[in-house]
Amino acid sequence: MEKSIGIIGGGSWATALAKILTDNGHRINWWIRSEDTIRHMQLRHHNKHYLTSVYFDTNLLELSSDLEYIVGASDELVLSVPSAFLEDALRELPENAFDNKHVISAIKGLVPSTNSLINEYLATRFNVSLDRYFTITGPCHAEEVANEKLSYLTFSGLMPERTQAIADKFTNSNLQTIVNTDVIGVQLAAVLKNIYALGAGIAHGLEYGDNFLSVFITNCFREMQLFLEQYEERKAAEEGAISAVHNYSASAYLGDLLVTCYSLHSRNRTFGNMIGKGYSVKAAQLELNMIAEGYYAAKCLHEMNREIGVYMPVAQAVYAILWQQLHPTEAFMALEKGFI
Amino acid sequence: MEKSIGIIGGGSWATALAKILTDNGHRINWWIRSEDTIRHMQLRHHNKHYLTSVYFDTNLLELSSDLEYIVGASDELVLSVPSAFLEDALRELPENAFDNKHVISAIKGLVPSTNSLINEYLATRFNVSLDRYFTITGPCHAEEVANEKLSYLTFSGLMPERTQAIADKFTNSNLQTIVNTDVIGVQLAAVLKNIYALGAGIAHGLEYGDNFLSVFITNCFREMQLFLEQYEERKAAEEGAISAVHNYSASAYLGDLLVTCYSLHSRNRTFGNMIGKGYSVKAAQLELNMIAEGYYAAKCLHEMNREIGVYMPVAQAVYAILWQQLHPTEAFMALEKGFI
Repeated sequence: MEKSIGIIGGGSWATALAKILTDNGHRINWWIRSEDTIRHMQLRHHNKHYLTSVYFDTNLLELSSDLEYIVGASDELVLSVPSAFLEDALRELPENAFDNKHVISAIKGLVPSTNSLINEYLATRFNVSLDRYFTITGPCHAEEVANEKLSYLTFSGLMPERTQAIADKFTNSNLQTIVNTDVIGVQLAAVLKNIYALGAGIAHGLEYGDNFLSVFITNCFREMQLFLEQYEERKAAEEGAISAVHNYSASAYLGDLLVTCYSLHSRNRTFGNMIGKGYSVKAAQLELNMIAEGYYAAKCLHEMNREIGVYMPVAQAVYAILWQQLHPTEAFMALEKGFI
Repeated sequence: MEKSIGIIGGGSWATALAKILTDNGHRINWWIRSEDTIRHMQLRHHNKHYLTSVYFDTNLLELSSDLEYIVGASDELVLSVPSAFLEDALRELPENAFDNKHVISAIKGLVPSTNSLINEYLATRFNVSLDRYFTITGPCHAEEVANEKLSYLTFSGLMPERTQAIADKFTNSNLQTIVNTDVIGVQLAAVLKNIYALGAGIAHGLEYGDNFLSVFITNCFREMQLFLEQYEERKAAEEGAISAVHNYSASAYLGDLLVTCYSLHSRNRTFGNMIGKGYSVKAAQLELNMIAEGYYAAKCLHEMNREIGVYMPVAQAVYAILWQQLHPTEAFMALEKGFI
């Protein structure tokens, strides 16, 4: 029998994933916090807040604001809430809630209170072992999924067959899926790209041109590769294993970096642009009514990298601008010299 | 004494390079075909056709339409004419014209009559040996050089010190220079990126979105790396040498690919866009009054790769669309499946 799949989260990315699964005829259990949103969806067949043009066959939806019920009814759970709200969203669940279940993270980012990767948090809080943990990453604006533009998602997990079985549920003519085993690396890449997109925004705010932007992104990619390789080597050394070699010229790494850095709709880029134009973090936050993920990611990475010691001049510059009041002009003038 | 430097060509890229050199106080010998353009520059201090906002200190310019005179007066010559016109431009020169001189190619593309790299043509026609040959590449719109936006140029040559000495003449606060020894690879990358930019245009014409474009460019980069590595290995094997390892996550390779694929001003992208929208090559050519370099490059590469046999599905698809009337939709549907 097909494993029943649940989605936790009611935002745009959760809605896009629900569309993909139901387009493929899968029944889903769907936890949405707001009962009002659920009532509206039952009546009007769409999410009133996100991707409002996407209509659902409600026969395929088991909607509930009762998280424990949705988790209990599902063998596979897709987590799709902002990383900053994850701990809060799962607070009411008992420690054994995910026992024997597959947990699939569609979250991009770290758990802020502990700088943890999602798998680390799930292991500590719910004893989810890494072989039951999977990730969904990719260069994938939810809006383009809604518009049925061809997109690519990468599914990562330690066990290729299990990962493939999950990916298969999502594959359709608008959605290509790729499977790999780099379940840690794809998460780190998703954190790094937000820092670099924020940096690309700062560069734009400082009035650098297209020539420079292409060199900047190229050097960010080189830096990302270096970090992922050294993280992998270190992890392998700790486990007494041989470090795996991954191809980072793939959509979950370079592809996601490109779409995030070049997209004018990226929150990280918009936020960075204001910083480059001379706004303080506080002022940019007030003006935009948000803080971009790259802001927290820069600090997390800085702390994580204290131990690992990878040479990351771009990530370090973004950190120093945002957290140590280094002037953007000064930071970028120092960076310029080192690019190849 | 400083070697005297000459520029051959009067287009926008030649004008940008002349600006960089004269900004740095170097006297230049400058061959421009049109005497009218020369007269105007002497009188009005700028090129009436290209980068018209750039004014020159004419005391630093030795302008002439006599090519043999300019070549004779220079120890170092920068070639900056379109690759399609190179043979014609140099026709009048005797075989020994470049003897004992450094020849620096700022040309992007192949010599069409023979599918030759510029160094191959210069070796055959003028006995220019590879140790006297250098290239200038980079993600570098001439317009941004004119506007004094920070840009990066890569100088390649077999002898690092000689190459560095040439690069030093160009380095200034708006122009960072990078030196490497991959004099063949950078030329090939510049040819490949035009094919891929044309492909990006086709994808846009077919109404793929940003998610797909980022995956497309990522896979183009992977394909470019593979070709450059295999070309290098093959060349090394022929010479009984050890193949060099180059970092392709650098501005002359990935950087130039990005700026060309993402720029809306790219002729290759514009041309591809029309092909994707269903125009024939003939109709696109008539409409745009030009044929993009990627069109010829696709054929050259196809022929070159017959021998080498690198797996290049994207370049092959662009070739088949342009030269074998394969329908773009069909070609891209086949490509989609293989992307990672």
